[in-house]
Amino acid sequence: MAEFPIDRFVDRYARRAAGMSASEVRALFAVAARPEVISLAGGMPSVESLDEREVARVFREVLEEVGATALQYGGGQGLPALRATAVRLMAEEGIAADADDVVVTTGAQQALDLVGKIFLDPGDVVALEAPAYVGALTAFGAYEPRFLPIPIDDDGMVVDELERRLVAGERPTFVYTVPNFGNPAGVTLSYERREQLVALCREAGIPIVEDNPYGLLRFDGAPLPTLRSLDPDNVIYLGTVSKTFSPGVRVGWALAEQSVVQRLVLAKEAADLCGSNLNMLVTDRWFADEDRWRGALAGLVGTYRRRRDAMLEAIKEHLPDGAMWTVPQGGFYVWVTLPAWIDTKALLAKAVERRVAYVPGTAFYPDGRGRDQLRLAFCYPTEERIREGIARLGALLEDEVQLYRSLGGGGS
Amino acid sequence: MAEFPIDRFVDRYARRAAGMSASEVRALFAVAARPEVISLAGGMPSVESLDEREVARVFREVLEEVGATALQYGGGQGLPALRATAVRLMAEEGIAADADDVVVTTGAQQALDLVGKIFLDPGDVVALEAPAYVGALTAFGAYEPRFLPIPIDDDGMVVDELERRLVAGERPTFVYTVPNFGNPAGVTLSYERREQLVALCREAGIPIVEDNPYGLLRFDGAPLPTLRSLDPDNVIYLGTVSKTFSPGVRVGWALAEQSVVQRLVLAKEAADLCGSNLNMLVTDRWFADEDRWRGALAGLVGTYRRRRDAMLEAIKEHLPDGAMWTVPQGGFYVWVTLPAWIDTKALLAKAVERRVAYVPGTAFYPDGRGRDQLRLAFCYPTEERIREGIARLGALLEDEVQLYRSLGGGGS
Repeated sequence: MAEFPIDRFVDRYARRAAGMSASEVRALFAVAARPEVISLAGGMPSVESLDEREVARVFREVLEEVGATALQYGGGQGLPALRATAVRLMAEEGIAADADDVVVTTGAQQALDLVGKIFLDPGDVVALEAPAYVGALTAFGAYEPRFLPIPIDDDGMVVDELERRLVAGERPTFVYTVPNFGNPAGVTLSYERREQLVALCREAGIPIVEDNPYGLLRFDGAPLPTLRSLDPDNVIYLGTVSKTFSPGVRVGWALAEQSVVQRLVLAKEAADLCGSNLNMLVTDRWFADEDRWRGALAGLVGTYRRRRDAMLEAIKEHLPDGAMWTVPQGGFYVWVTLPAWIDTKALLAKAVERRVAYVPGTAFYPDGRGRDQLRLAFCYPTEERIREGIARLGALLEDEVQLYRSLGGGGS
Repeated sequence: MAEFPIDRFVDRYARRAAGMSASEVRALFAVAARPEVISLAGGMPSVESLDEREVARVFREVLEEVGATALQYGGGQGLPALRATAVRLMAEEGIAADADDVVVTTGAQQALDLVGKIFLDPGDVVALEAPAYVGALTAFGAYEPRFLPIPIDDDGMVVDELERRLVAGERPTFVYTVPNFGNPAGVTLSYERREQLVALCREAGIPIVEDNPYGLLRFDGAPLPTLRSLDPDNVIYLGTVSKTFSPGVRVGWALAEQSVVQRLVLAKEAADLCGSNLNMLVTDRWFADEDRWRGALAGLVGTYRRRRDAMLEAIKEHLPDGAMWTVPQGGFYVWVTLPAWIDTKALLAKAVERRVAYVPGTAFYPDGRGRDQLRLAFCYPTEERIREGIARLGALLEDEVQLYRSLGGGGS
């Protein structure tokens, strides 16, 4: 654990902040930002793929046609035009919604924070996939819940296990899930499990928070219905343009019923008053042109598909026997499970020395598991860099296997 | 109190959200947004005063020179260049700072939320001016502190009263103050009281959170030293470009020591991952040209000075005997105290009928006081609209006085 500097405020922090720590992983990532290191760690979208002239055109239009409004405060719920755009994007995934039920947030990350803020008292229970999106663990974690980790397999959350926990008396305040190409595991909740999860939660009176940043980034297979479309009354749905357009505009949203929406707006105003009109106008304008955004999205999907293919091929070629990995049908991530004697957090320093970086698995569990797991992101590096990065990682792991055997491990 | 719609989640909200309410004042403000109503309520800066060609030029430069970076995720602490710009702006107010000690936030409002998040457990005490900035009450309020309201006079917070409360055993986690042209009262903490406050808090080991959005908007008199410059070790300082450039870019910041900065960054990442690169780059570019930003600021100060003068003249002419008001040397607001039998919240509906709006005083107190007070903003309407708005308000108040007398009030 990296140390904070000497701290004259040390007796004053809130309970939730006393535990906040600048991890050594964070320090390593600073090193990993050097260009000679191939980072398979960060989930940065390939915004370079966007047509710069189209982006410039959108900005010009916003400034010419809207002028000073772009620089002014906006309302807490977000611009009506952008909320209508969010409704159109959700319709792409089978969701019927009303713009009045949408709250624009600073990326979907802020929606997680606001959901935590309005629903969670200390000790309340949040059920979620294990491994789970690390940003959900930190956003909800600020409100001091107890996490109830539900295991996953290649079909996503094991809903039978959630049911067993409910039968055993657990009463989560809500169930949080990323059903499409989840972060970090890259797996997708099967159709049968979607129906099962929705029915179970409805019967138990437990709301679902469905976080769907990657849904439109499907490479193969047929789209599955969103949980929200299966049960509009019991699902709070979170969307974003971070993966379909730009994360730099920080535009996400929550779709919920009015009683929740009104509390989210009040919580949003307390948190940062309002979103950026400028960014909302640019985003709205980007999606106003069907050809533009559909063309850009198709380009991104093609890029990511090729990068996933390159990563899976390289993994097959370079990772040692005993390694297992997921095969994502979309999104950004492959999840790797190694032999149990490997500690991916300890190994990261060696990996960075060999000029490749990943995220250790423990980051994605609320309970210290995942020591033998790691997340690989194929979204940002080129195919060539992905192949080279996986080759470097494979060589490191081979050396670790040899070292382990030479020390008498593995029954040799 | 306006009602929320029927709510199937009603048993699930956190304690802090159960109390969240869509107020009738909010409903009235929706009506007050009609163009025929002169709103003296909202604190919207006069962004129309900015030179649109300069704004467009800045955007063009950012897109041409930075390109895709503007659309990508950024770091949690904010772009180094923008943090250096914040340091330059703080130097204008006598603060010596290092860019490493700055955290960029989504407006200074988010800095309030993050300060609350890292410092406040339920029941902790926050000392602040009464009346106080309503956004600070809601931001801190989410973390369920007890507020310790300290009265103000024309020289700002009555520090003697804070001292009495400390002697009586109160131990605030921090003292929150807006020392320059505060919102809502428009008063400024005197030099003597600045020295007194800083010494008192240092001796008691209580950090000060200094929120200074209006400091550079001084119309007359000499600038006073910031609390941060008087005691850098014990003051967390909050700044913003919302009033000197644009609130639409949502750029503010906190300046603090490293141990606090690191926690603020972690809390920021949990809250919304990162700021908008695009907005940070635009803001940085705006302030890169000294002539541009100083010229624009001088223009804004001139505009606001004329509007303040118009408001004070109209108040003197139209408000009935028994009304008292503050005389701000800068900023956006005049604070009016009326005879104690007037309820400004009840009166707002009548005011909106007469096509003028203000903010009732109770919004700015944590304890229900301020019923006979109201806030008037001179920042946004033209001088002509300000005069007409005050005339309408004065006529309404005169009629109320007549009504009150006819009912036997006021000793007649």
